[in-house]
Amino acid sequence: MLISTFKGVDGETNNSKSLEYLTRGGFVHKTGSGLYSFTPVGLRVLQKTMGLVRNHMNLVGGQEVLLPTLQPAELWRETGRWDVYKGTMFTLKDGEGKEYCLAPTAEEAMSDMVRTQITSPKQLPAMLYQFGLKYRDETVRSGLLRTREFWMKDGYSFHMDAKNMAEYYQVVRAAYVQIFRALGIDFRAVAADPGEMGGGGSEEFMARSALGNDQFWFCSENSCLFGAYLDKKPDACPSCGNAVVKAPGVEIGHIFQLGTRYSQQMGLTVDGGDSRPVTMQMGCYGIGVGRIMQVVIDQHHDGRGPIWPEVIAPFTDVIIPTNMRDQTLVAAAERVYSALLLHKDPLLDNRLDITAGEKFAVADLLGVPRKVIIGPRSFAQGNIEIELRTGKKSTIGLEDFIAACSMEAHPAVV
Amino acid sequence: MLISTFKGVDGETNNSKSLEYLTRGGFVHKTGSGLYSFTPVGLRVLQKTMGLVRNHMNLVGGQEVLLPTLQPAELWRETGRWDVYKGTMFTLKDGEGKEYCLAPTAEEAMSDMVRTQITSPKQLPAMLYQFGLKYRDETVRSGLLRTREFWMKDGYSFHMDAKNMAEYYQVVRAAYVQIFRALGIDFRAVAADPGEMGGGGSEEFMARSALGNDQFWFCSENSCLFGAYLDKKPDACPSCGNAVVKAPGVEIGHIFQLGTRYSQQMGLTVDGGDSRPVTMQMGCYGIGVGRIMQVVIDQHHDGRGPIWPEVIAPFTDVIIPTNMRDQTLVAAAERVYSALLLHKDPLLDNRLDITAGEKFAVADLLGVPRKVIIGPRSFAQGNIEIELRTGKKSTIGLEDFIAACSMEAHPAVV
Repeated sequence: MLISTFKGVDGETNNSKSLEYLTRGGFVHKTGSGLYSFTPVGLRVLQKTMGLVRNHMNLVGGQEVLLPTLQPAELWRETGRWDVYKGTMFTLKDGEGKEYCLAPTAEEAMSDMVRTQITSPKQLPAMLYQFGLKYRDETVRSGLLRTREFWMKDGYSFHMDAKNMAEYYQVVRAAYVQIFRALGIDFRAVAADPGEMGGGGSEEFMARSALGNDQFWFCSENSCLFGAYLDKKPDACPSCGNAVVKAPGVEIGHIFQLGTRYSQQMGLTVDGGDSRPVTMQMGCYGIGVGRIMQVVIDQHHDGRGPIWPEVIAPFTDVIIPTNMRDQTLVAAAERVYSALLLHKDPLLDNRLDITAGEKFAVADLLGVPRKVIIGPRSFAQGNIEIELRTGKKSTIGLEDFIAACSMEAHPAVV
Repeated sequence: MLISTFKGVDGETNNSKSLEYLTRGGFVHKTGSGLYSFTPVGLRVLQKTMGLVRNHMNLVGGQEVLLPTLQPAELWRETGRWDVYKGTMFTLKDGEGKEYCLAPTAEEAMSDMVRTQITSPKQLPAMLYQFGLKYRDETVRSGLLRTREFWMKDGYSFHMDAKNMAEYYQVVRAAYVQIFRALGIDFRAVAADPGEMGGGGSEEFMARSALGNDQFWFCSENSCLFGAYLDKKPDACPSCGNAVVKAPGVEIGHIFQLGTRYSQQMGLTVDGGDSRPVTMQMGCYGIGVGRIMQVVIDQHHDGRGPIWPEVIAPFTDVIIPTNMRDQTLVAAAERVYSALLLHKDPLLDNRLDITAGEKFAVADLLGVPRKVIIGPRSFAQGNIEIELRTGKKSTIGLEDFIAACSMEAHPAVV
């Protein structure tokens, strides 16, 4: 496994611990300004984030698709957005002078696919989503927070009527709450101006974070979802009555009731009976899957590195034999590794000539939730040690641990 | 499940059955010239192709990463390829006038990551690969065959010396043979000119296909790998002695022994001992994962649609109750579906108001390997019918089939 951690940081991290840890943990490599590569370890976090989001999108009936990122100008001219987005979107021409943009969003491309593929009311409602690269020619900011190229989950739903669309919007909203809670993110839902996206209601999911440029009102009660723009000036949370606090926030998701803003202009109709064409109602649902890993680090870290939730940690467990010259310890570590492979995603740190202390430091900088430590003293009594990334330690018999690993759940030893 | 099949084709398919079936089966949607979207069904084929390739790359020690597709001109100037590729690569500027290209390949970006992340000889050898979008501003050709934007698996290996690199090249070559055989592709390996990639030995994997623009010599023996450019003029296969035939071919993979072509210019060195810097040896390995689905259709289809190998079929089985009004048939179909879900990827076609005949036609146009047909006559005797896409039919007891589904392997009934 290629793991490259760094003791210092080359270049500026803008006093951002999250960017420092992304870099020092070797999760990303800066290829250019606002352009990041994901290393094997970093891609694990990104892919697990995508996997979590994919599961929840499938649970609400979503079907994954994939649209081009290089998009013809004609499509954007159909909705009049070619001129609106010019300046913040990358545009280019091919050798024949034909114009394209690099997708900043994909309403047009998705609508174009749907008008071909969905022709019957029996195919509605439908939710189509993708994990697609998006591009913005904007001032870059703190690591993965605002980049020129980034990964988004963008989903689009299509309905026979506005009521069905509004109901489904609430279903996706609930899925978003589940996703962000699973990631351990402290966030609120803020009623938002739909802006250039057009359409009706819209909410932004804002993570509380000093990385944010803008301030918001956040309900002080963690289980409450209420947030608002500063111009709303609430004295108390209108939802639960608790105090509101002013704090910076970072957008991690945005959902829109688009109505017929795009479907009308692009001719998304189905037969509503009696050959009466019905224009589809449309919703749109984005999650910034690329920036989420930085937001999670921002909210969950200590002086030694990130503290990942298990669901997106690059590894669930690091197994560390404290003395690689002691073959009985190494053999036990290999047994623990094989046992954990059944239901977890472990890493066996069996590097020679690296002290146990250095291995602990690397595991912490990688933010791995659990260390399984196999040292001579406890091993002499048939035990191994479990240390959570959050600090808690415990001891368990090696054989008990291995037996428990064959169960679906992680051994409930800590 | 959004499945849109079409009886006719809008627009030209250049007399290409593969492009016709890609379109009529609703696998892809043309978003623009040389720009394709993947529908839910088409993305299943693409993702399964990627999954197969990923498994084989991991088996040869590969580690997945992800590089930006928008790449700064500086990187390409380091190797002198900015000017070489200009004309076939899309280039663009940001608002500040900074130049970028859309990656036509990724030696520079990968080398840039490796010179930061690999600093010790202990980290070598290493194989890093990605599934990345690639772009070429070239004349588009027949559907997914040559597009402006396409998916490639590109892998890059790094070594301490040329011997190690050459040995590993053979390991990857063997993995490629396994991958293309698993896909059921009729192909040969052709010694090639490395061209703009530079470096030493290079081989192209060519699929025999009328879609190809160029002719090659192919060994007539299917188990033999020998192929050659026409200017080689062999009388018989130098590998097995069988006759050679002249036929058009399509490139599906390309592997290169790059040597130090990039690593020298980009400063990829590790300490070789005594503080002596050693320039890494590099190999490069591409597979055109996007075009593979069209090549497979081209080689495997009949008058009714594609004939996918199970490993990349959008579904492994389609379950068709022939009469949706007969609740006992529908209930049996649901039991079969649940049973198959354990180890397969089935689709239950329980649409109302669509005849069984139409469902058979859709299953064939989707190219699904097996139909499980639940009809009143055989069901009265406790039986269901299995029909392979290749035509073979058989009858099996419902309960026997369901019991067999809980085994790892597919019920060996046909």
